[in-house]
Amino acid sequence: MNRDDIPGLPVPLSGRTRIYAILGDPIAQVGSPRLFNSEFRRRQTEAVLVPMHVGSADLAALLASFRAVRNFDGLVVTVPHKIDIAAMVDEVGPMARRIGAVNAIRKNETGRLIGDNFDGAGFIQGVAKHGHGLRDRNVLVIGAGGAGRAVAHAIVDEQPASMGVFDVDTERSRALAAELAPFGPARQTETSSAAGFDVVVNCTSIGMHPEDPLPCSLEGFADGGLIVDIVLKPPRTKLLDQGAQRGCSTVEGVHMLEGQISAICDFFAIAQPASDAHA
Amino acid sequence: MNRDDIPGLPVPLSGRTRIYAILGDPIAQVGSPRLFNSEFRRRQTEAVLVPMHVGSADLAALLASFRAVRNFDGLVVTVPHKIDIAAMVDEVGPMARRIGAVNAIRKNETGRLIGDNFDGAGFIQGVAKHGHGLRDRNVLVIGAGGAGRAVAHAIVDEQPASMGVFDVDTERSRALAAELAPFGPARQTETSSAAGFDVVVNCTSIGMHPEDPLPCSLEGFADGGLIVDIVLKPPRTKLLDQGAQRGCSTVEGVHMLEGQISAICDFFAIAQPASDAHA
Repeated sequence: MNRDDIPGLPVPLSGRTRIYAILGDPIAQVGSPRLFNSEFRRRQTEAVLVPMHVGSADLAALLASFRAVRNFDGLVVTVPHKIDIAAMVDEVGPMARRIGAVNAIRKNETGRLIGDNFDGAGFIQGVAKHGHGLRDRNVLVIGAGGAGRAVAHAIVDEQPASMGVFDVDTERSRALAAELAPFGPARQTETSSAAGFDVVVNCTSIGMHPEDPLPCSLEGFADGGLIVDIVLKPPRTKLLDQGAQRGCSTVEGVHMLEGQISAICDFFAIAQPASDAHA
Repeated sequence: MNRDDIPGLPVPLSGRTRIYAILGDPIAQVGSPRLFNSEFRRRQTEAVLVPMHVGSADLAALLASFRAVRNFDGLVVTVPHKIDIAAMVDEVGPMARRIGAVNAIRKNETGRLIGDNFDGAGFIQGVAKHGHGLRDRNVLVIGAGGAGRAVAHAIVDEQPASMGVFDVDTERSRALAAELAPFGPARQTETSSAAGFDVVVNCTSIGMHPEDPLPCSLEGFADGGLIVDIVLKPPRTKLLDQGAQRGCSTVEGVHMLEGQISAICDFFAIAQPASDAHA
């Protein structure tokens, strides 16, 4: 059956190919199918991830078919479904329970659907892969929406020295700081300034447009600090550029995405290739 | 977004990729995902066909999600679902209505599911692509099961001079001949012999195993006749080999499959590439 192999498919699709999907509404903008399929290929698994454009009203129908299709092994969940779908799976992992949002679901051996959230773990992995740890650092998280909550919960588990949470919606930042308090030294920050911090993480969409201001002032930010932006497009935001000009280390949004893909493939129990096992 | 292009994917999967699936139980044995994805690539459409392993009890759930997922455009249906699913779509095309079995379903602009059957059309296309017509020929169809019925209904529309239908289950061949009679000169054939015919089509699985007998005797078969076998593995059956030794033309099962794939892609309204438009 190798006559017409398509060179470069994750592996050539056959009747044995396992299926994964990313659910969202809209879906056309997601870049992750390309990245997941590259990672599946690197891990040498006969699987493919496809985008599925599903509205909120149809999530239940999609989950029913996910349960029914026997070679359909996992779901990645994106906007606007992460919160709603958390109530529709059979078990929710510890991080998803803390933040009330699921971004990946796997089917276990008995067919139960297990959901968890890897937005924060992906962030930590992406930053770590670039040689940066967050332990004992003074970290400012800008934005207390879905991404900010996931990232802040993951950061607080890394035992920073201190952590500030800023949002233009002060009610939201107050609530997130309160929610983080049992896990570590988190506090609400009332001004949009990085003064006194040595790590800044932008978890807002500010920076996507050329005319956007900086998400925070860098006055008083530590020399040689670390700046991380979760914005994907453009890859180099104004925040990262201005940070780099001040001698800061910078990590782009794509690395959080790459970290998520790796963390989710691990959750899906797709093994690393043998040659990489001790890499 | 081209940094990590996977060379050779139908096109690299993205958020804009359209989805198709082949449904069956079992599914691991199907070869068509590879062939459909090659054809999608040749037609330069951003789409992927994946296998879906679905049991009969779960067909309704699968169809519900097919309706719900907005970039899920078409289904190919294989054993054992072709008959059951015919009752579950919104409209059934003319050939599917005649044979009571659907092997492809598309969603139209208003979301209605249209099913039809291309097993016979694929057979005719595969044979035609090898330079053979069936008009005014004397054709023996061996096997009056699902494949035989689809092929016989397509052949009778080609206006053969005569047509015999043989099956070891004589009730089945009698019923098929009666069903074909309104469309052309079809009759039941009581003996497994190609004598008096100049085209033989094997629509049984006889020939898959090395120890299988011929599906019919070739004694008295026309010199220079045409022998077609729908068996896929092995590609060269004993019937084809013995026919070729007698100077007959032969067409392998894979060409029926290729013809089906082309006919189904047309049904899905996936355009031929401009460069091939007048090929």
